[in-house]
Amino acid sequence: MIQLIGFDGDDTLWHSEGYYQQAQAEFETLLAKYVDVHDSRLHERLLAVQKANLKVFGYGARSMMISMIEAAIAITEERISARDVHRLVEIGKGVLQHPVEVLPGIREAVEAVAEEFPLVLITKGDLFHQEAKVRRSGLDDLFRRIEIVSEKDNSTYARVLSEFDLAPGAFVMVGNSLRSDIEPVVRLGGWGIHMPYAVTWAHEMENELDASDPRVRSISSASEIPSAVREITALGRSGG
Amino acid sequence: MIQLIGFDGDDTLWHSEGYYQQAQAEFETLLAKYVDVHDSRLHERLLAVQKANLKVFGYGARSMMISMIEAAIAITEERISARDVHRLVEIGKGVLQHPVEVLPGIREAVEAVAEEFPLVLITKGDLFHQEAKVRRSGLDDLFRRIEIVSEKDNSTYARVLSEFDLAPGAFVMVGNSLRSDIEPVVRLGGWGIHMPYAVTWAHEMENELDASDPRVRSISSASEIPSAVREITALGRSGG
Repeated sequence: MIQLIGFDGDDTLWHSEGYYQQAQAEFETLLAKYVDVHDSRLHERLLAVQKANLKVFGYGARSMMISMIEAAIAITEERISARDVHRLVEIGKGVLQHPVEVLPGIREAVEAVAEEFPLVLITKGDLFHQEAKVRRSGLDDLFRRIEIVSEKDNSTYARVLSEFDLAPGAFVMVGNSLRSDIEPVVRLGGWGIHMPYAVTWAHEMENELDASDPRVRSISSASEIPSAVREITALGRSGG
Repeated sequence: MIQLIGFDGDDTLWHSEGYYQQAQAEFETLLAKYVDVHDSRLHERLLAVQKANLKVFGYGARSMMISMIEAAIAITEERISARDVHRLVEIGKGVLQHPVEVLPGIREAVEAVAEEFPLVLITKGDLFHQEAKVRRSGLDDLFRRIEIVSEKDNSTYARVLSEFDLAPGAFVMVGNSLRSDIEPVVRLGGWGIHMPYAVTWAHEMENELDASDPRVRSISSASEIPSAVREITALGRSGG
């Protein structure tokens, strides 16, 4: 029996990755003053700095801001001006302060699911930023609990489920990232509803999930969430 | 009846502020190349940038790092070199990666209290950094739950207590900051054990607590924690 539905935040409930990609485009425009942007593989170098810093910083907009500064200093061979470093700080602050736009159909879909199940929001990144986004989204009243975590892996989901005193088979996670939202939950024995977002950070593309896994439903819009939950509930009941 | 004991992390269980103050000393040394450090009130200007950024970023070492970069650009009137900006990034990373040194007597004191009460660790700052510190401290097995929060105010403590289904009068918080650990808990109707640390960040000095509040015990070392808890337990029993 399904007893709890989890939702991811960024790019599941509200737009996020678009702001990061816009920040990255601004980063590249700014660096065009110093280097040939076509030759220097800016994107790959920034991603490499970000990945190295994940181990020190974790995720989030402040991490991206610091990685952009570090990458810009390396890429320009220390020629970047203080004024342009400050511009990178401002680009990062823009990501932190953007308005929260809830995705189309999300409010209705989440309300419909909330009528039948308790909901938990499980979101990754900066505590402060995520809390601000949850508040700005106006969706916080629909969730029994809000879990902001530093990494979405097996042990994180196992901890959250144990705090709810729940077996993984009673839990469905809805999210846009196979890597962070679906794969670890399915590995534990839970269920996943995968709703891809228009754009995905390269880091989140990495996963080893079998696309035909029977414990995963793939949908293309928020309006399909309630029926996907019902399908899984029926399967869960029949011991599937 | 006291039913739950909360502990702060930074500067209560392990050393922290010293690393931030060392980073700030390195910041000032670095800026001495550009400005007269005695004239320019570096300390006040950095604190002003940090306070403004608290509203955008929240607390933590990454916030400090970004504030140092912003303050350095402003203080040097954009003359700081990219190499020195990178040095500020390295100073910030040093704060994030320092070893965790548990304060003298803490392990024994926390173990003694844990024999009689469930414990919760309530700590403020970067999720990723705080999780790493909890792990490195080796104290994580003593706590029933670890709550990493973005701000330690009345509503945060009220939420944590409601998740434990507990009245404030059944809760004692142990910490070094009157502002963050003691004042909000006492205002809610709980109890505080104040154990000052050698140094305190200027921001944490701000509080409006009456020093003679009967719900607060002040102690000077970790070895006094168990007896302070016992005193409060006796008062709590007698309805004090």
